[in-house]
Amino acid sequence: MQTTIRIIGIDPGLRRTGWGVIETLGNSLKFVASGTVTSDGDMDLASRLRQLHDGLADIVHAYRPHEAAVEQTFVNKDAVATLKLGQARGIAMLVPARAGLPVAEYAPNAVKKSVIGVGHGEKQQIHMMLKILMPKAEFKGNDAADALAIAICHAHNRGASRLRQVALVS
Amino acid sequence: MQTTIRIIGIDPGLRRTGWGVIETLGNSLKFVASGTVTSDGDMDLASRLRQLHDGLADIVHAYRPHEAAVEQTFVNKDAVATLKLGQARGIAMLVPARAGLPVAEYAPNAVKKSVIGVGHGEKQQIHMMLKILMPKAEFKGNDAADALAIAICHAHNRGASRLRQVALVS
Repeated sequence: MQTTIRIIGIDPGLRRTGWGVIETLGNSLKFVASGTVTSDGDMDLASRLRQLHDGLADIVHAYRPHEAAVEQTFVNKDAVATLKLGQARGIAMLVPARAGLPVAEYAPNAVKKSVIGVGHGEKQQIHMMLKILMPKAEFKGNDAADALAIAICHAHNRGASRLRQVALVS
Repeated sequence: MQTTIRIIGIDPGLRRTGWGVIETLGNSLKFVASGTVTSDGDMDLASRLRQLHDGLADIVHAYRPHEAAVEQTFVNKDAVATLKLGQARGIAMLVPARAGLPVAEYAPNAVKKSVIGVGHGEKQQIHMMLKILMPKAEFKGNDAADALAIAICHAHNRGASRLRQVALVS
């Protein structure tokens, strides 16, 4: 018997962290909700991280996903930006882990490949494919769209990684 | 009337996060406790961040500091290491913020200047000065020693930053 699995995808960022919740049953995908948690750029860093934490914790509490997936963020050459992103990403991984969810990580090209078939592409292509894969999907802005794409990537890959785990165990 | 202020200093790291608690009353410093919270390198990243979170939250709960200080970590040229550090640093700032503490940040050279008088120096000099400034200080390893140095830096600078805030407000 197949079970419906509810997945939260998270696209971390200090200013804006996108989130998207979907359900997967076998090969079918269903949109549940999406949005963005923001932090106030005028506040100090610790308070901003707390805002991200509390906002994401509210989402996890409200939608009660079974599994989480976070983008394995591209590491660019700007070390200050990478450190900021790392701080936000730490929060994005901590919140589902504290709620007892397994947290998977996917590289950006794996996410794109999962949604548009290739490992590179424009934001517009991702938006279009989200609408094809989940006609009822609603998202405002790139962060929520990216988060939904991450959730879809996990829906496509979670079986495979589970099979690999079984293969490793047996 | 002067009030005793209890400060926790935190030196963040994914594998080892050092912490040190001191008390300051006027110009005097008193050692309270120090230690290291570690994460298990064999576990997945989300679980490791949760370990750091839970370990630090226990320390904050046990010692009830009034204020926190975290090192504004040196950003090196290794982007992967910077991202890892950022993730641990996000947790190190979140935990005291969630407990309602103000969280100050200090650059490494400010921390060294506060303890050994100049902005550069060897680990050994920091260890020696900690023992001179707080004869009863106990610390195992560099991470706990660095965390105590960060706490001392905040003890020396918190008055100044408070005066600056007052000056800005008035």
